[in-house]
Amino acid sequence: MATLADIGVSALINILTSFAFLLAFALLRIQPINDRVYFPKWYISGGRSSPRGTRNFVGKFVNLNFKTYLTFLNWMPQALRMSESEIITHAGLDSAAFLRIYTLGIKIFVPVTVVALLILIPVNVSSGTLFFLRKELVVSNIDKLSISNVPPKSTRFFVHIGLEYLFTAWICFLLYKEYDNVASMRLAFFASQRRRVEQFTVVVRNIPHISGHSISETVDSFFQTNHPNHYIGHQGVYNANKFAKLVRRRERLQNWLDYYQLKFDRHPDKKRPTVNTGFLGLLGRKVDAIEYYKQVIKDLDTLMISERQRVIKDSKSVLPVAFLSFDSRWGASVCAQTQQSKNPTLWLTDWAPEPRDVYWRNLAIPFVSLTIRKFVITALVFALIFFYMIPIAFVQSLANLEGLERVAPFLRTVIELKFIKSFLQGFLPGLALKIFLYILPTVLMIMSKIEGYIALSTLERKTASKYYYFMLVNVFLGSIITGTAFEQLHAFLHQSATQIPRTIGVSIPMKATFFMTYIMVDGWAGIAGEILRLKPLVIYHLKNMFLVKTDRDRGKAMDPGSVDFPETIPSLQLYFLLGIVYAVVTPLLLPFIVVFFAFAYLVYRHQIINVYNQQYESAAAFWPHVHSRIIASLIISQLLLLGLLSTKKAAKSTPLLVILPALTYVFHVYCRSRFEPAFRKYPLEEAMSKDLLEKSTEPDLNIKAYLADAYLHPIFRSFEVEEEELVEVRVDKHETRAASPPLMSEHSSPSASHHHHHHHIEEPSPPHYNDYPTSPPSYYYHEPSHLHYGYHYQVEP
Amino acid sequence: MATLADIGVSALINILTSFAFLLAFALLRIQPINDRVYFPKWYISGGRSSPRGTRNFVGKFVNLNFKTYLTFLNWMPQALRMSESEIITHAGLDSAAFLRIYTLGIKIFVPVTVVALLILIPVNVSSGTLFFLRKELVVSNIDKLSISNVPPKSTRFFVHIGLEYLFTAWICFLLYKEYDNVASMRLAFFASQRRRVEQFTVVVRNIPHISGHSISETVDSFFQTNHPNHYIGHQGVYNANKFAKLVRRRERLQNWLDYYQLKFDRHPDKKRPTVNTGFLGLLGRKVDAIEYYKQVIKDLDTLMISERQRVIKDSKSVLPVAFLSFDSRWGASVCAQTQQSKNPTLWLTDWAPEPRDVYWRNLAIPFVSLTIRKFVITALVFALIFFYMIPIAFVQSLANLEGLERVAPFLRTVIELKFIKSFLQGFLPGLALKIFLYILPTVLMIMSKIEGYIALSTLERKTASKYYYFMLVNVFLGSIITGTAFEQLHAFLHQSATQIPRTIGVSIPMKATFFMTYIMVDGWAGIAGEILRLKPLVIYHLKNMFLVKTDRDRGKAMDPGSVDFPETIPSLQLYFLLGIVYAVVTPLLLPFIVVFFAFAYLVYRHQIINVYNQQYESAAAFWPHVHSRIIASLIISQLLLLGLLSTKKAAKSTPLLVILPALTYVFHVYCRSRFEPAFRKYPLEEAMSKDLLEKSTEPDLNIKAYLADAYLHPIFRSFEVEEEELVEVRVDKHETRAASPPLMSEHSSPSASHHHHHHHIEEPSPPHYNDYPTSPPSYYYHEPSHLHYGYHYQVEP
Repeated sequence: MATLADIGVSALINILTSFAFLLAFALLRIQPINDRVYFPKWYISGGRSSPRGTRNFVGKFVNLNFKTYLTFLNWMPQALRMSESEIITHAGLDSAAFLRIYTLGIKIFVPVTVVALLILIPVNVSSGTLFFLRKELVVSNIDKLSISNVPPKSTRFFVHIGLEYLFTAWICFLLYKEYDNVASMRLAFFASQRRRVEQFTVVVRNIPHISGHSISETVDSFFQTNHPNHYIGHQGVYNANKFAKLVRRRERLQNWLDYYQLKFDRHPDKKRPTVNTGFLGLLGRKVDAIEYYKQVIKDLDTLMISERQRVIKDSKSVLPVAFLSFDSRWGASVCAQTQQSKNPTLWLTDWAPEPRDVYWRNLAIPFVSLTIRKFVITALVFALIFFYMIPIAFVQSLANLEGLERVAPFLRTVIELKFIKSFLQGFLPGLALKIFLYILPTVLMIMSKIEGYIALSTLERKTASKYYYFMLVNVFLGSIITGTAFEQLHAFLHQSATQIPRTIGVSIPMKATFFMTYIMVDGWAGIAGEILRLKPLVIYHLKNMFLVKTDRDRGKAMDPGSVDFPETIPSLQLYFLLGIVYAVVTPLLLPFIVVFFAFAYLVYRHQIINVYNQQYESAAAFWPHVHSRIIASLIISQLLLLGLLSTKKAAKSTPLLVILPALTYVFHVYCRSRFEPAFRKYPLEEAMSKDLLEKSTEPDLNIKAYLADAYLHPIFRSFEVEEEELVEVRVDKHETRAASPPLMSEHSSPSASHHHHHHHIEEPSPPHYNDYPTSPPSYYYHEPSHLHYGYHYQVEP
Repeated sequence: MATLADIGVSALINILTSFAFLLAFALLRIQPINDRVYFPKWYISGGRSSPRGTRNFVGKFVNLNFKTYLTFLNWMPQALRMSESEIITHAGLDSAAFLRIYTLGIKIFVPVTVVALLILIPVNVSSGTLFFLRKELVVSNIDKLSISNVPPKSTRFFVHIGLEYLFTAWICFLLYKEYDNVASMRLAFFASQRRRVEQFTVVVRNIPHISGHSISETVDSFFQTNHPNHYIGHQGVYNANKFAKLVRRRERLQNWLDYYQLKFDRHPDKKRPTVNTGFLGLLGRKVDAIEYYKQVIKDLDTLMISERQRVIKDSKSVLPVAFLSFDSRWGASVCAQTQQSKNPTLWLTDWAPEPRDVYWRNLAIPFVSLTIRKFVITALVFALIFFYMIPIAFVQSLANLEGLERVAPFLRTVIELKFIKSFLQGFLPGLALKIFLYILPTVLMIMSKIEGYIALSTLERKTASKYYYFMLVNVFLGSIITGTAFEQLHAFLHQSATQIPRTIGVSIPMKATFFMTYIMVDGWAGIAGEILRLKPLVIYHLKNMFLVKTDRDRGKAMDPGSVDFPETIPSLQLYFLLGIVYAVVTPLLLPFIVVFFAFAYLVYRHQIINVYNQQYESAAAFWPHVHSRIIASLIISQLLLLGLLSTKKAAKSTPLLVILPALTYVFHVYCRSRFEPAFRKYPLEEAMSKDLLEKSTEPDLNIKAYLADAYLHPIFRSFEVEEEELVEVRVDKHETRAASPPLMSEHSSPSASHHHHHHHIEEPSPPHYNDYPTSPPSYYYHEPSHLHYGYHYQVEP
């Protein structure tokens, strides 16, 4: 048990660490050489093309203007200067709504902190049972300020219960206002936006196979019959996952080629670089690297061409999925919200995600397997949450010093050094766990992908929710009740429904100091590390050294990243949970939460303005999750307080608390029915008014041409990036596309020809992408390594 | 504990009772005087207008054809003769689907019974632990045939687990097939039906109030904007609940008038009947009854006219609810399935129930209160299920002999008789409980009405679901674990999640004999009582004696009743639960279940063909509930078996069972996504093909005229029944409707005038009701006493 002094020391250390990070950041960011690491967003949005500052040789790399060093903390006021509406235009609604989570945290916890500290500390301190108990129990000063200090059967518990009611009411009030705000921001965002292709597009899955008809014919005849006034055509989807693999391989090879080419160009006097052709470049024949990679890439290109032709010609590679185009938002809205077919598992329509947001690979998953996939993944996530310690313990039992010496005997002398030995003995067992926690979000993302969601935004939301459950069980409950999650599960199964909150409730006050330290390490120092961007900084400079030839390459080497929703939102929700649970129990924890929210708000505001570049825009689709998790935190806190008080024998006051969870739940149900449809559906009123407005302002808009290749499958775009090399491919493609029928339905042929034309004159960017002013399109399979393709369109001309 | 012989005696008694009922029924039904009690459906459908049989005076009342007495059991083969499709035409899809629940029961339990008896009885008997334990435990022969007889740690439990898997697979297979069948029957029913008004009608609730505009204007402008191609008009809804009360009062008075009139007419020589005007006809001045009632009714008519005018003129009595008419099924389908407004609590659209099915009174409930109402009722139902014993125990403590003597001293001498005293002492305490159980369905129906559902079919489904929970907790669990439901609840809250199934599982085999008796009393004899129709028989003859003047009155006196879904479906589900739970535990219970299903199937088939007259048609909307409750029974049975086996220390075999509930649940989720939309939504494909078909066969159908007064509020119909008396009212009504704007939107004025016309030439039945060939419309407030109004249209001409 830590005392107040211990916590003070810990706080000091963490504050110093954070300050060190901030100082490093402040110094690094004003160096021109790092400009693309700390301000990539401005390069992407076109606000900057080269570092500001002096133009002499040294000045290109190091900041020589010493005045700027004096104002090195001025990023903080700068971050606050941009208004919310400017942020929406600059970075999108997702980012703006993400920042609102932090302001919500501040709004909730500042008054709660003040009230709790002012009222509860005197109430708890003056009761003073623990002063007399000191010798029997190991208690800290902090416990004297918490509810533990109140003697059993005290009437003072009425104060705690009253405050729980008050805080619940205050939080519900803010949640309601905020849900309302975000919902109207979402609708205003849709209304203010210019035309967006996804407003006219509906994705249909599980198209039935009618023998003697192609998928395309089936789709056209079905929707021409059932949506005769609004349906104008569709775009087919191909199973090009194998082709995508080839594209990824080609890119890897191209990187190596660039690397060797650059190496040779810089030192043309040295002998040409060589490479081994065998396993991992270690074995096999030694050959000239540049020639070798050129040849391999050429072979791969031939393979890709034939694979692409196979995909286009083979009717089996046409998936039973299509993007339907409508001539009005109203028509698309109707089609997305209604059931089409007698058999409710066929012709499943839903809103199309925006083109950048589509996760193409999952469109190939047949619908029947989705239920099974969901079930299997749910079982796996459950196992992962409750049994993850088993494989790790196994690995830990292997990864000891004896094992290491046996595998690598040459290390024996090093290992036997006393200093290193003790370090390793302390370090190795934890390593497996560290690695596991590091790759956990990736693992959860892969699980979500297996579940078969077709939009990146949905994938991230589902990953976030899995991660949240992991944190809730393993960080929150796992810290309160010692023992592995599996042991907890076992205990819970063998305890009664009334005993569980009691078991947890009792231990809560004792863990306050642990969570204070947790908030400082994970929250304060972690956030300060986020702004430093150490990893992207290193990677950028490495790439700059080995791969960058032109300014365009330098653009490719930038990695702006984006808000990591699957990781950040669950951590945030954990802080809400901690704050709400401890508000009444140990109010001393609250200031730590407030500092976290304020500091993180500043940092993320800065990052969103200057660094991050969102890959997609879901228009704050994650808000219902944020809302309902905070409600869940409220109910958890009420149940735990109930459990805690029932051990305090406060029989007079405790029953007062029973009704509160029910009321909170009713509030939740009301909010859900009031606001959630705004996040799931697109009201017809809205669609119609936009349609009418557009008809009056742009009476001769050709909507077919506008939609022509919005959801064109990436397979048709892949080659256009490498213009110089692939003229023959393009000719070939032209023929192929002329031979195979155009993907749009027959009455869209004018637009299809438009699209051909448009593509072959090599406009750098399809015109409709001007509708996404804030960020470049990334047409490609959404693998980080491919994001660079997207830039070409923007950066090149 | 009952032995096999005890059960045999009990079975004999119940079989004899049932036979006595059947015999009574067989004799009563062939008496012409009872013809309208046992064959009302044929009178309503027009198949009969007077009893068959000889035409002499005695023959009108008693069957003199003695040959028919010899074939008195021929109703059984007769009941089986009608095919399912004929039943659908004759009695509607609801009735046909209801019968399918029984065939499903037979299909499930006949093979299960055979397999379980053949395999399990030898397995259980030959283990024979209980033979040695006889002196320690009180066991019966039946226990020797059950799982209790298998010694702990036996490997024989693999047989039980294997059978549980086999039965689950078999039941899921049948459930899937049956869901598929019923879903396609539903769609075929919609497709085969001629035009139905509800296919073109959507109900919209929570219309916002826009100042300066009437509700009607707001509705028209909103839907003309947002559904421009299909919306053709709407019908407003009035808050006429007060008026409806007057109508009910008038009817009561009319009944009295008829009674006295008839009394006087039969004996015109006696002096005219008199009545007291005061409290309950006991106090006050004595006046001539006929004159008095005529005067009161006349006064009431004046009051009703002014109240009706107030309702029509007062804009406040127009409710924010309307029935929207569309020119096509497609348009209505789109409007019903989409979200209309930015604010998801406004402009809530949904399918309109069919006109007979609307529960008008609840249309007046404002939407905001619905969440609260649902919450309050849920809490009340919970309390009712778990604490209903408290008020009953209180009443019981009051209702003893001393209390009775104090209230009614004049009974003292009677009560003090020994025989009567002991009878009352045994009877009185149970009386409160009996009364409670008798009125329970009514109470639950009132609760559902308070929840605010606007269709009778929904109300009945919700009542059924409440009743099911009551039965599950108080009949099933309450019989297995002794003690009140409240004590159980307390025990469950203080037991761990793994302990609960164990506690219940252990007691299950011991309660088999109790449930066998229950099935015989409630199932066998109860069903035999159902076919006898004792209550309607008595009431019909009483009415016939005192009120009936004309044949038309005799038609009114008939009470065909209908399948009592809120009570029958939950009982059925209880039998499924019992059968599934005991299939593996005590297979000897299964034959009782099979007999119940077979017998009940025969009885209900007979009743549906000859007696019941459904008030509405929901097209088997209850099937998803039937399906999911059987799935719930499966999961309950698996968990209880798991609990039972875990007390048997069958550690080797028990883990095999853990996966089964999860698999069952996955099956349920799949079925829900596969079939449930067919019961909630109307696919556009279906709507469009019906529209196109209709357009080609009836190109000049006037759909506006067709829909004109389909959902006319009952307030406009109320007077037309009493043609002769109310000419002046009709004139007044004409003026009123000309003065207040017609309810249809302006571009429906031709149809509105058609509608006026149509009403004032007093056609006996609106033409579109011919679309319901099987049953007469009951336009009125759905109170049983008003159903007679409906007949007028059919019976009169």
